[in-house]
Amino acid sequence: MTPSTTLPRRHLLAASAAALSAAGLASWTGAAQAQATAAAAPKPLPGYAGWKAGNALIVHSSSTLETRRGAFGTSVVTPSSQLYVRNNLPAPDAAILDDRNAWVVRVEGVKNPRELTLAELKTLGLETVATVLQCSGNGRGFFPTKPSGTPWTVGAAGCVVWSGVPVRNVVAALGGVASGMAYVTGTGGEKLPEGVDPLTVLVERSVPIKAMEDAILAWEMNGEPLSLAHGGPLRLIVPGYQGVNNIKYIKRLAFTEAQSQARIMQHGYRMTPPGAKASPDQPSVWEMTVKSWINGPLPEQGPLKPGMVQVHGVAFGGTRGIKGVEVSVDGGKTWQAAQLIGPDLGRFAWRQFVLPVRLGAGTHVLASRATDTAGNVQPEQREENVGGYNNASWADHAVTVSVA
Amino acid sequence: MTPSTTLPRRHLLAASAAALSAAGLASWTGAAQAQATAAAAPKPLPGYAGWKAGNALIVHSSSTLETRRGAFGTSVVTPSSQLYVRNNLPAPDAAILDDRNAWVVRVEGVKNPRELTLAELKTLGLETVATVLQCSGNGRGFFPTKPSGTPWTVGAAGCVVWSGVPVRNVVAALGGVASGMAYVTGTGGEKLPEGVDPLTVLVERSVPIKAMEDAILAWEMNGEPLSLAHGGPLRLIVPGYQGVNNIKYIKRLAFTEAQSQARIMQHGYRMTPPGAKASPDQPSVWEMTVKSWINGPLPEQGPLKPGMVQVHGVAFGGTRGIKGVEVSVDGGKTWQAAQLIGPDLGRFAWRQFVLPVRLGAGTHVLASRATDTAGNVQPEQREENVGGYNNASWADHAVTVSVA
Repeated sequence: MTPSTTLPRRHLLAASAAALSAAGLASWTGAAQAQATAAAAPKPLPGYAGWKAGNALIVHSSSTLETRRGAFGTSVVTPSSQLYVRNNLPAPDAAILDDRNAWVVRVEGVKNPRELTLAELKTLGLETVATVLQCSGNGRGFFPTKPSGTPWTVGAAGCVVWSGVPVRNVVAALGGVASGMAYVTGTGGEKLPEGVDPLTVLVERSVPIKAMEDAILAWEMNGEPLSLAHGGPLRLIVPGYQGVNNIKYIKRLAFTEAQSQARIMQHGYRMTPPGAKASPDQPSVWEMTVKSWINGPLPEQGPLKPGMVQVHGVAFGGTRGIKGVEVSVDGGKTWQAAQLIGPDLGRFAWRQFVLPVRLGAGTHVLASRATDTAGNVQPEQREENVGGYNNASWADHAVTVSVA
Repeated sequence: MTPSTTLPRRHLLAASAAALSAAGLASWTGAAQAQATAAAAPKPLPGYAGWKAGNALIVHSSSTLETRRGAFGTSVVTPSSQLYVRNNLPAPDAAILDDRNAWVVRVEGVKNPRELTLAELKTLGLETVATVLQCSGNGRGFFPTKPSGTPWTVGAAGCVVWSGVPVRNVVAALGGVASGMAYVTGTGGEKLPEGVDPLTVLVERSVPIKAMEDAILAWEMNGEPLSLAHGGPLRLIVPGYQGVNNIKYIKRLAFTEAQSQARIMQHGYRMTPPGAKASPDQPSVWEMTVKSWINGPLPEQGPLKPGMVQVHGVAFGGTRGIKGVEVSVDGGKTWQAAQLIGPDLGRFAWRQFVLPVRLGAGTHVLASRATDTAGNVQPEQREENVGGYNNASWADHAVTVSVA
């Protein structure tokens, strides 16, 4: 999940920092402060994510962990221990995992609304889907405007495998969607701070109802029961949609006529033009667009020797899958088709690409440019916006390596 | 990897237990002793695998860890933390991982034989492949004859993703295979105990040369640099072949006219008929055959309530992939086609299957039966053999659950 836009956050901080602090949310405000100071010293992993591989992660704050670019492997699936974390509120108490099957989600906006336990969900079907999970703020660190929020570069993303029940099965079991509904709205089960208008902090997001066809309620990630850090015991997975729409600790799944009234929906995560204020009439961060980046070689790995190098990285197309990837070793002047390698985990997953190139002495600007199956080409330039969302610019993601 | 057959091991223990003990191989002999006593108390994880998820594993000995049947998830890829371990010799000192890129493998039986460092291998190509890694002794625990060796049931197997360089690329870079070669022979880099004929303990296996087309030299598993427990820094992966053929810490890759003279090849891992002695003229454990089993529901999860249950499990076809899986809830009298779910990671990976069934009060014998893409059907009965290898019997893998 990703940070709310600048304006609501600032508003919130101004309005209710004292209340948050009183509610024990120091880590939350601490995150914003750390982002403001920008030059943070290395921090330890927060307790709820203490099982993660610290050397593979950049700890921006207790609620924002980023995978190091050099830690991404080439085996398609991102290990859970290396996957980024972005929490909009502190994680609930780990006690919610004590009896996973007793977790309750209320389903509304269907013909026969009711509460279902996780045990009951497990009788309604089983599906497995690989998805790119990406914070909509991934790439924000490349914006020269330095938007408020975590300055992620590429590591607020991963490709992981989920198991759960298709939302359409749940809907069918409850008589179908009620008439007139246009959105799927998920509500997170985080504990809300007291003394604050709940709508200013509630994690509740709406996506267009068509997303229901692919969505699942997931209780497992990468072969293990879903961890607290990633939304266990139950998370709404909306394949192809930006991370914030994948509601953790989901306690309510509703089919609704309108979008959620929560600030995170109305004003947060909007593509607000430079100089404007966030507003519900601006596009929300929903479907991801075509994007790729290079994970090797990287400048931080030191100078290369002249000779052959396997330029490799990842590419994904939101809901569309990847048709191909080109690689440039001259900063985008010329391009060569890369090879897609490894198993294809489906249209919501990322693909790996590799291009063997011979590099001579000097510096080389390496870039990648992906095309999705609908023919959309990854753009050279980012779309400027206040929140620093949806950065798919291939120029921003290029790396400069030296050969000596 | 999997245990050597009964006869060589007994011979070895009789001949050289003192030498092994002197060489600090107490854990190795301890393993055999634990197997002999059969009723082992819970053991801690051995040091080289201390990072694994202990609650997901059965520790048979310091060199034999099995994934609990109930720990297998439904997200296709087996997490590294849950993957089984079988070492034929103690793992080398972890110092061999200090400078991974300096690891050397000697390539022989090619036009231009030479040593290559891992850094050099990384310039020759990059491929990613998902494979079922399975000990050939998986299922031995179901043999009523109680063969010597670890009594694995289903957990000496997993589906994992490897990255490395295709062996065919390495061969091409060295001028091609020398004439007359019929096998690919890999030699492990384990430290051999002193005072023992090296050929009695050396981990060296040969596979038919056709396997070269799919084989890779892998330095990464499941997105992380290959761990010591699983053969890092470099392992030969022979997709579709039983685990023992996937040589850990590989230090020599040779194209040879004949099979290795090591005991693990000549007498170990042979399909020795009941009552006979192991002999090189018996089939070796090479390609895996079609197999499946149910991972849920399981009797150890307690009695079920009457109603719908998602019967699920995994199926694989060695080098051939899976065409379909049938499930029976009456011990094999009648069968229904199950649904294959989740991403298809290629012909060497396993597929997940699920069949929703309604179970009433009483006991039910659940079984699964897979068919590979060549039309081979998983057999009802195991092939009897002294070592307890290659158990693909669907009857042996059936589970009995009670509904109350």
